[in-house]
Amino acid sequence: MGAGFGFRVTATDGRARTGVIATPRGTIRTPAFMPVGTAATVKAMLPESVAATGADILLGNTYHLMLRPGAERIARLGGLHRFMGWQRPILTDSGGFQVMSLAGLRQLSEEGVRFRSHIDGSAHLLTPERSMEIQRLLGSDIAMAFDECTPFPADEAVARASMERSMRWAARSREAFGDRPGHALFGIQQGSLFRELRAESAARLRAIGFDGYAVGGLAVGEGQAEMFAVLDYAPGMLPADRPRYLMGVGKPDDILGAVERGIDMMDCVLPTRSGRTGQAFTRRGTVNLRNARHADDPRPLDAACTCPACRGYSRAYLHHLVRSGEMLGAMLLTWHNLHYFQELMAGLRAAIAAGRLGAFVADFHALRAEGDIEPLRSGGD
Amino acid sequence: MGAGFGFRVTATDGRARTGVIATPRGTIRTPAFMPVGTAATVKAMLPESVAATGADILLGNTYHLMLRPGAERIARLGGLHRFMGWQRPILTDSGGFQVMSLAGLRQLSEEGVRFRSHIDGSAHLLTPERSMEIQRLLGSDIAMAFDECTPFPADEAVARASMERSMRWAARSREAFGDRPGHALFGIQQGSLFRELRAESAARLRAIGFDGYAVGGLAVGEGQAEMFAVLDYAPGMLPADRPRYLMGVGKPDDILGAVERGIDMMDCVLPTRSGRTGQAFTRRGTVNLRNARHADDPRPLDAACTCPACRGYSRAYLHHLVRSGEMLGAMLLTWHNLHYFQELMAGLRAAIAAGRLGAFVADFHALRAEGDIEPLRSGGD
Repeated sequence: MGAGFGFRVTATDGRARTGVIATPRGTIRTPAFMPVGTAATVKAMLPESVAATGADILLGNTYHLMLRPGAERIARLGGLHRFMGWQRPILTDSGGFQVMSLAGLRQLSEEGVRFRSHIDGSAHLLTPERSMEIQRLLGSDIAMAFDECTPFPADEAVARASMERSMRWAARSREAFGDRPGHALFGIQQGSLFRELRAESAARLRAIGFDGYAVGGLAVGEGQAEMFAVLDYAPGMLPADRPRYLMGVGKPDDILGAVERGIDMMDCVLPTRSGRTGQAFTRRGTVNLRNARHADDPRPLDAACTCPACRGYSRAYLHHLVRSGEMLGAMLLTWHNLHYFQELMAGLRAAIAAGRLGAFVADFHALRAEGDIEPLRSGGD
Repeated sequence: MGAGFGFRVTATDGRARTGVIATPRGTIRTPAFMPVGTAATVKAMLPESVAATGADILLGNTYHLMLRPGAERIARLGGLHRFMGWQRPILTDSGGFQVMSLAGLRQLSEEGVRFRSHIDGSAHLLTPERSMEIQRLLGSDIAMAFDECTPFPADEAVARASMERSMRWAARSREAFGDRPGHALFGIQQGSLFRELRAESAARLRAIGFDGYAVGGLAVGEGQAEMFAVLDYAPGMLPADRPRYLMGVGKPDDILGAVERGIDMMDCVLPTRSGRTGQAFTRRGTVNLRNARHADDPRPLDAACTCPACRGYSRAYLHHLVRSGEMLGAMLLTWHNLHYFQELMAGLRAAIAAGRLGAFVADFHALRAEGDIEPLRSGGD
């Protein structure tokens, strides 16, 4: 593990763990949820507001940043932290997942992926070596190995070939990353839904040696049951003394299931993207603020929530903002959602530390089963 | 003047005045610039951020609020202040200006204006009486008389007929408003560019009696020279012991010229609207952050500005946000612009109090004449 970077598990409850990742830019409490700051901004949020929700670390997207404003430019401007005004740790993905998603605009080879920018059509080549260079230019604290996110569904032969290429790319990523004190490189396990492939991938990653390990290739359409089935064994194949990161997850109940199965880190656009479309996550489930039933409701979204949206405003006001397309609606609901996700993680960490994760999960599901508060009998309009 | 509402001039410098308007919801320092909160939100700003820029009072739009979410609904929800989370004073316009702008969608008669909503095409009637009722339902601290904003250009006969109708409507507004302790009603002078009509309008408003007086029908395309020509005499026709409000103004140099001519209050969408299109107001003039010359510039927009956009970010970052269409760009530039406008007002108030308004205005123009800081010689990309 790079100097200045460390991981310590402080308590376990079943397969679940809680602990801290130490980095020169600060401590990451695990299990951790990472808000996504795609284009050097967590959309609709000031960075100090993101920090106020309790986020210890952000995710930045190599694909987006390499195209606009460009990795070399960000490096000249002092790195991504300074550029976007976020001084806590940043994890960058490798760009692999996003370029692979550019159907029709990309060509895959052993060297890497040739693709065209979705912004201006310009031609680019992303390889393990270039991905490591970009992530170094951005100055992220945790870099991800460049891999191929295996398409879903994939038969075993396709999944094996894809996993094997990802493992060759993992070795090239490790080699290209080199030794960067205070910076970490995570490998990514592939193998689709095939246990043997997952085991082989894990063994090859361990042989290469990484500072942390991600479970890749999930949350790609397989459904929660299949995802949990893989998570029943995949994290156990990875070193217990390194952070385990489940990429692109997820909904609150996905997060609980992943944490119960030994996952330490997650990221997802769900709280931010939903915040821009009027969807709010609450302890009682998802609430659609566009719905007319909120139009006259003077109550807060969640009376027990301490975020600015719930402390200062009624459902009626949030409804009005969302219906009117006002930016403040996106700002408040994004803040609320990120606050909710971070509160959920804090609750999980405390429950694991107290050895009562089972009760926490049961309470979570019981309150959601009750559903949202009843609509008021409105005076009408 | 309504109980609990008062105006006191504390210093003058030439025709310029500084003072305070006292209201039960707090003090408004004059000359005051009112940010516009059209649809119960100052776009892209949290209300506490608006307050942090130094704004003592907001403007709300009767036309927008009556259509969505509806004045009766806002009243049921406790009024506009509670609805939008702004506890300082609010001035509402009468809706007249906006319905008059609905070319082809409105019919004008002595009764008022019939119009169709730009949102859903529904039919509405706005009269002096209904405008007063809506403004009461909203709970604004300062209401405006319902008037006709005379089209520009207008010949004298048209301007006279329009002014006379506005004066009849002003009397109906005063009658309908009644006596509301702690709430003020302002009359609006019309008369286009005709001095005699302005004098007659002022005399008729004074005969009715209002808590404050607006100069209406300016900033409608006549140009700064014509506007200043009217402002050379129009404010002097209005009572010296009541606030004088110039509606819909304006650019920073318009504001200076208006204050020099005895105006106490102004409002304009310019700082907020410009903030959403990448335009920043600075002491050195307007800066277009979309411009490529900012792409590699590590310097703040204005090194002397203490707003969050200037304290925390480079021009390169603001350029990136604007080019990428990121909401944070609109949020930061709106904040900067509102901060700039409020700093300008604070500077004007201090200069008037110190009897050095002339020097303040000279310094303002001298710094703008220098223009924006030179572009860096960039390393290129």
